[in-house]
Amino acid sequence: MTRWFEDIVPNEIFELGQHTFTAEEIAAFAQQYDPQYFHIDADAAQHSHFNGQIASGWHTVSMGHRLLVNALDVEREKIIAAGEEPGITGPSPGVNKMEFKHPVRPGDTIAYSFTVTSKRPSKSLPGWGLLLQTVTATNQNGDLVYRAEMAGFTKMRDFNPNLKQRIGMMLMNLPILSKLLRR
Amino acid sequence: MTRWFEDIVPNEIFELGQHTFTAEEIAAFAQQYDPQYFHIDADAAQHSHFNGQIASGWHTVSMGHRLLVNALDVEREKIIAAGEEPGITGPSPGVNKMEFKHPVRPGDTIAYSFTVTSKRPSKSLPGWGLLLQTVTATNQNGDLVYRAEMAGFTKMRDFNPNLKQRIGMMLMNLPILSKLLRR
Repeated sequence: MTRWFEDIVPNEIFELGQHTFTAEEIAAFAQQYDPQYFHIDADAAQHSHFNGQIASGWHTVSMGHRLLVNALDVEREKIIAAGEEPGITGPSPGVNKMEFKHPVRPGDTIAYSFTVTSKRPSKSLPGWGLLLQTVTATNQNGDLVYRAEMAGFTKMRDFNPNLKQRIGMMLMNLPILSKLLRR
Repeated sequence: MTRWFEDIVPNEIFELGQHTFTAEEIAAFAQQYDPQYFHIDADAAQHSHFNGQIASGWHTVSMGHRLLVNALDVEREKIIAAGEEPGITGPSPGVNKMEFKHPVRPGDTIAYSFTVTSKRPSKSLPGWGLLLQTVTATNQNGDLVYRAEMAGFTKMRDFNPNLKQRIGMMLMNLPILSKLLRR
């Protein structure tokens, strides 16, 4: 999140926008990263489990991530335009769960939304908060396409470190930080 | 897996091959799906947490999926060349856990491996087995880059269905299958 930890309201829903998947881009992504016939060959895909061409799950996920990054940029600019300082987002340690519920077919318009479902101060990284975040993707018929639950760090605005924590923060400015953050 | 459920040996490790990530392809993927400055701008990335350009996690994941699809194709051809019939792979209901442990930087060579960690007959889909599968990615220094645990269906070769199960199999041949499989 581009907000400070203190300003994040759990369960607030952010609509990230939508994307219409074309047959061409479904095939183009799949050629590079998931060349299974039901992604790249619309005719052969008629004989698959899916009865037609569908997008790679990683394509659906990556497009949602693109819309999330765009939405965070817009949010950051709003905060700056309001004369405030945007928060600092840290990296994500990982994804807790990802469920593919319904295929994405050519012409489908997928709407993505984002919610922080819970927040708490990080135990391992003083001055940072740990967020649980959910991304959902829904098609034009209201079918849930996929749902992911991810963890993410975000910085605290009001943080008065003790000596041990100040040492921790010094370490965070060393090149080793990214390594620490990702453990 | 491209093998029949019965032929899968848990904990057998499949090396999927490796890929060297260039600065150009890291930026190209990120332009489309993850346009954060530390992915697309090598100079600005010097001032990020990561002290340099790194690949989007989704790029790392997608490239591993590409190598997995390639490896399954090779395995399938081997089975056919041996005069046997390859097994039938079903779709994946999702990812149970995905951990990003270490950044991927330009010039890094990432080796991916794949293991079926457990198998059991599916309760919801008679005639199919449910596999737990792990993908790991490791860089040239031996650092674990990422690890994912996924579920997947694969068909049973020797399956004598009872009446209830035969009805279930009829349903599996209907267009609604993909929907059922993904619930």
